[in-house]
Amino acid sequence: MTDVPVLDLSADVVSLTRQLVDIESVSHNEVRIADAVEAALRPLAHLDVSRHGNTVVARTDLGRAERVVIAGHLDTVPINSNLPSRLVDGILHGLGTCDMKAGDAVILKLAADLTAPNRDLTLILYDCEEIESHHNGLFKLTVSDPDLMRADFAILMEPSDAVVEAGCQGTLQFEVRATGQRAHSARSWKGANAIHAAAEILSRLGSYEARRPVIDGLEYREGLNAVMIRGGVATNVLPDECVVSVNHRFAPDRSEEDAERFVVDFFDGFGVTVTDSSPGAHPGLDRPAAKAFIEAVGGPVNPKFGWTDVARFTVLGVPAVNFGPGDPMFAHKQDEHVPVEHIERCERQLKQWLGLDKVDHRGMA
Amino acid sequence: MTDVPVLDLSADVVSLTRQLVDIESVSHNEVRIADAVEAALRPLAHLDVSRHGNTVVARTDLGRAERVVIAGHLDTVPINSNLPSRLVDGILHGLGTCDMKAGDAVILKLAADLTAPNRDLTLILYDCEEIESHHNGLFKLTVSDPDLMRADFAILMEPSDAVVEAGCQGTLQFEVRATGQRAHSARSWKGANAIHAAAEILSRLGSYEARRPVIDGLEYREGLNAVMIRGGVATNVLPDECVVSVNHRFAPDRSEEDAERFVVDFFDGFGVTVTDSSPGAHPGLDRPAAKAFIEAVGGPVNPKFGWTDVARFTVLGVPAVNFGPGDPMFAHKQDEHVPVEHIERCERQLKQWLGLDKVDHRGMA
Repeated sequence: MTDVPVLDLSADVVSLTRQLVDIESVSHNEVRIADAVEAALRPLAHLDVSRHGNTVVARTDLGRAERVVIAGHLDTVPINSNLPSRLVDGILHGLGTCDMKAGDAVILKLAADLTAPNRDLTLILYDCEEIESHHNGLFKLTVSDPDLMRADFAILMEPSDAVVEAGCQGTLQFEVRATGQRAHSARSWKGANAIHAAAEILSRLGSYEARRPVIDGLEYREGLNAVMIRGGVATNVLPDECVVSVNHRFAPDRSEEDAERFVVDFFDGFGVTVTDSSPGAHPGLDRPAAKAFIEAVGGPVNPKFGWTDVARFTVLGVPAVNFGPGDPMFAHKQDEHVPVEHIERCERQLKQWLGLDKVDHRGMA
Repeated sequence: MTDVPVLDLSADVVSLTRQLVDIESVSHNEVRIADAVEAALRPLAHLDVSRHGNTVVARTDLGRAERVVIAGHLDTVPINSNLPSRLVDGILHGLGTCDMKAGDAVILKLAADLTAPNRDLTLILYDCEEIESHHNGLFKLTVSDPDLMRADFAILMEPSDAVVEAGCQGTLQFEVRATGQRAHSARSWKGANAIHAAAEILSRLGSYEARRPVIDGLEYREGLNAVMIRGGVATNVLPDECVVSVNHRFAPDRSEEDAERFVVDFFDGFGVTVTDSSPGAHPGLDRPAAKAFIEAVGGPVNPKFGWTDVARFTVLGVPAVNFGPGDPMFAHKQDEHVPVEHIERCERQLKQWLGLDKVDHRGMA
């Protein structure tokens, strides 16, 4: 571990966020930031630290009645002329500020400052969230060390405007295919145009009305959208195939199988091929650990429309919510940023919930 | 001119076709076949031979009342395991047999055998017909030596089942664009899906009814077909653009401008961008030279639906027809072939029309 950046966990949470942001960590390039995180956590005597690839896990083992997982990913999408960080008028700008190094900084502050939390903690900082699922550090941990994922409740520090976003919708990616018969375009009556046949697919999509089920008091909103379309052989040939790639977002009261049945039925008469699928996550707000968290944090509770790694906990039977600083609409944008107030509020509320009596969000160490 | 293949113009037309087919001449690789054609024609005292790139022109100058252009292209589409030629049961198989070295062989037989035709002849064997128009040898000749194209009538030896196909339809290539607004597919109500908006474009295409005008007694049949479609940003993003490439074939009673006005009007409400356009060719069967040819050849006269180089003559005010051996449906196919009977019939009919009294289609020289 040579040339490992030094993280100062005694700094305030905003400074710590900047330290993390300024260590470039695009997916597959997380070794330096993971080294830095591991090096900062190892000396803390109240934590049991383990390393799994570029994922770092830190646990207390105080025999508390409940255990909580708090997790954040260390990687970012590619750089877009938005490094290093800049702090302007209470807003921290730069790649990863919102998605999600501000959340990671909160986790590191909890690690450093909560030497005797009222719930046992499993803190997970992982790699490769922004790319294909099989690289995802949390997914790999689910496979290699599922016991480390077990808890009564999980919080994922995904940006959610510093309020609780519960559960998440599932996502089903599939192709709908219209077919025809090739012919020279100068003698088109000898063939059948597959692109023309796709009009019916697009027109059904246009008439789709989204289901909006209420689950645990939260109104979800489904979606069915063409995201890609392709077809054509040459400019003088009638095309014999047109493929529409469709993305379906489904509320967590439906399983992946339910969702697939729905789309096959919806596109009756056309070939449907599922290419990718991830289950939703039930909000689980009826579970005692979740209830207590919601009460402690206060404020609104919103449904999560997008898919996040909370679903990985749901699969293990662990209720999980998204709760992190930053507006998710700015994730992956060139002008990504996070309000300082969000970062400080998340830190303060988590510390209060986890039993730090006197909370001063500056210089807490 | 080293290593120039020797063409034996005294051979019968089918043997000569095989000689031409067995000289590979994919577009941009016509130098050897053009050298061979030039070398075979130069010794013929009754012809004035000139070379223009890989295009060879041979003319009589007998002061006849009429001049006829007879033209054929020397290039082929790429090889597809279909060389050398094979003669099986009266059918000659191989790349270029149909499109259009059988026609070229007929032209070479006319050149060799008609020392005193009843009409002056301009025989043109040209390159690069199968690729972008600006490479086309006949197009280049129109620009560099338009006088060589002037005539009372022109015959293009494009495969037409050895019957006359008159004129040709024009072709207009354009893009129709539907637009929208990007949004994350999990929050689709924040955007507008451009692919869904393209449903209306496809549905108008589906309801199109082809105009079938009768011109000089021939029924043309227009066409309007999507040939390509593209759209999409990523599988989790609502697309903001969907582009449909459309090919319009229009009968020769409409100009390119007429055709463009029609499609702009047809897709009213959408952006239309013309990317390519070629005018149709009026059959011109009311012109005396054309009439005489039709009478001499006999048989049915069909409209040409596809676009061919006959349009280049129409632009110069020269009536022109397609008349060549082979079924055009087999052009560009792996199993390209031509019936021997077609080749011999074309040769016989052209020679009769051009004044060779005693026609014996074998060993005529």
